[in-house]
Amino acid sequence: MLHLVGLGLSDEKDITVRGLEIVKKAERVYLEAYTAILLVDKEKLEAFYGRPVLEADRELVETGSDEILAGADKADIAFLVVGDPFGATTHTDLVLRARELNIPTNVVPNASIMSGIGCTGLQLYNFGQTVSMVFFTETWKPSSFYDKVKENVQIGLHTLVLLDIKVKEQSMENLARGRRIFEPPRYMTVAQCASQMLETEETRQEGVYGPDSLAIGAARVGAPDQKLVVGTLKELSTVEMGAPLHSLVLLGRRTHDLERDYIRQFAVNEETFDTSYVKGYGASS
Amino acid sequence: MLHLVGLGLSDEKDITVRGLEIVKKAERVYLEAYTAILLVDKEKLEAFYGRPVLEADRELVETGSDEILAGADKADIAFLVVGDPFGATTHTDLVLRARELNIPTNVVPNASIMSGIGCTGLQLYNFGQTVSMVFFTETWKPSSFYDKVKENVQIGLHTLVLLDIKVKEQSMENLARGRRIFEPPRYMTVAQCASQMLETEETRQEGVYGPDSLAIGAARVGAPDQKLVVGTLKELSTVEMGAPLHSLVLLGRRTHDLERDYIRQFAVNEETFDTSYVKGYGASS
Repeated sequence: MLHLVGLGLSDEKDITVRGLEIVKKAERVYLEAYTAILLVDKEKLEAFYGRPVLEADRELVETGSDEILAGADKADIAFLVVGDPFGATTHTDLVLRARELNIPTNVVPNASIMSGIGCTGLQLYNFGQTVSMVFFTETWKPSSFYDKVKENVQIGLHTLVLLDIKVKEQSMENLARGRRIFEPPRYMTVAQCASQMLETEETRQEGVYGPDSLAIGAARVGAPDQKLVVGTLKELSTVEMGAPLHSLVLLGRRTHDLERDYIRQFAVNEETFDTSYVKGYGASS
Repeated sequence: MLHLVGLGLSDEKDITVRGLEIVKKAERVYLEAYTAILLVDKEKLEAFYGRPVLEADRELVETGSDEILAGADKADIAFLVVGDPFGATTHTDLVLRARELNIPTNVVPNASIMSGIGCTGLQLYNFGQTVSMVFFTETWKPSSFYDKVKENVQIGLHTLVLLDIKVKEQSMENLARGRRIFEPPRYMTVAQCASQMLETEETRQEGVYGPDSLAIGAARVGAPDQKLVVGTLKELSTVEMGAPLHSLVLLGRRTHDLERDYIRQFAVNEETFDTSYVKGYGASS
């Protein structure tokens, strides 16, 4: 059987009791290691599980899934996913492939950033569609996220922005020359995300949000050193949140008083928070 | 310290390793037992934890929070929440009260239905705001959910509908007479939800959805006997999904082919699924 096991958001102890039982008895244990990361390294997981862990990079998962599934018709194979197996990155393709091979599957849910972001005190009910922010380059600044944010903003909903991470990426040159040399991993920060959002508004000029729009920066959600910072996009564009992973929530107009009372404690500056808040928020429902 | 510990969605083994460590050493362990339920009873939890578990009903949490927090400045108090502590039901009020009393808090995330619904194979990115469906009565049929669904539908997003549960409710008469006699618990089924949705469309007549609109019924998400059924609202209005808890997802117009391929396996009737699908879905982006 193929077991897709969610690891949660922070470290080795965020796995569920059920998930740990499966990992301990699985014949092979893979760790999906390219769409998200835990805050501990593979060695720590191996020590905790008492099992070797095989890193599954994008290449293996997307083109070598049959290698992962080999023997899964008889033995138990565990495929570990940071967060939830069907969270920010769904692994339905792997499940579909398993079905084609008549391999039964079992999913062990866990916390995902999509629900973990509730730690901000914002009601998950009040979130619209989630968007992703990729690293801009000189020549590539996709703004498709902007249209989705606009749809959420028009309704007055919060928007969760998931930030790009680049793991095991090859430079154009190494790719062209077929050299398996990888760039150092990069994780987008809240500050970078806020800056890119403001840059996009500058270009699009549709007034979806601006320097005074309120947002929440979240770092290491679920970890003991989780950090939340509330401020205007201008303030957040220079905020220092520390180690990855980071996420950002653009506050929706329909914010409730209870939500405001809770997030205010994380304000970079309570004065600018209150000023910006009365200007554009609190229009419940 | 006050520890808010998520229990996940299914049974006693869905708690995380970190959560279990906290429960085992906590001085008092409360279980929030009125907004959601696990599929196992309190006794099973107590046996698994090796600790007595105190049931915290709405009354205690909303008016007796200081009783829960008593001594939490010195000892560890665990407050267990089905799903995630900040998921479908947020307990920010308890955290705020703890802060007023200078009691440190710690949150242990877990799977929530808000992310667990990803087990349907639908991308969590493509969900709009979440709505709740309450039990209709002869005289009370609130349709505020309809306006929110309409907003999601106009964008083309999926809508997660969380279904009402009634635990420890008193009849009007017993309430009036101050008799602490409680009605048997009730859990809304997918069929009831689909019927009430169609009834509301009949009344509102705004063409937000109809009998041929596709939806997914989900029962016992995350449990070994999890059940998913895809069909038109008409089909789901008579579907039998078994034991609680149930949820429903109204399919959005922007469904991707990958999502369709995955959910089609759960179709009550693949013909009606295909017919309805080509009529109104697959308009990606």
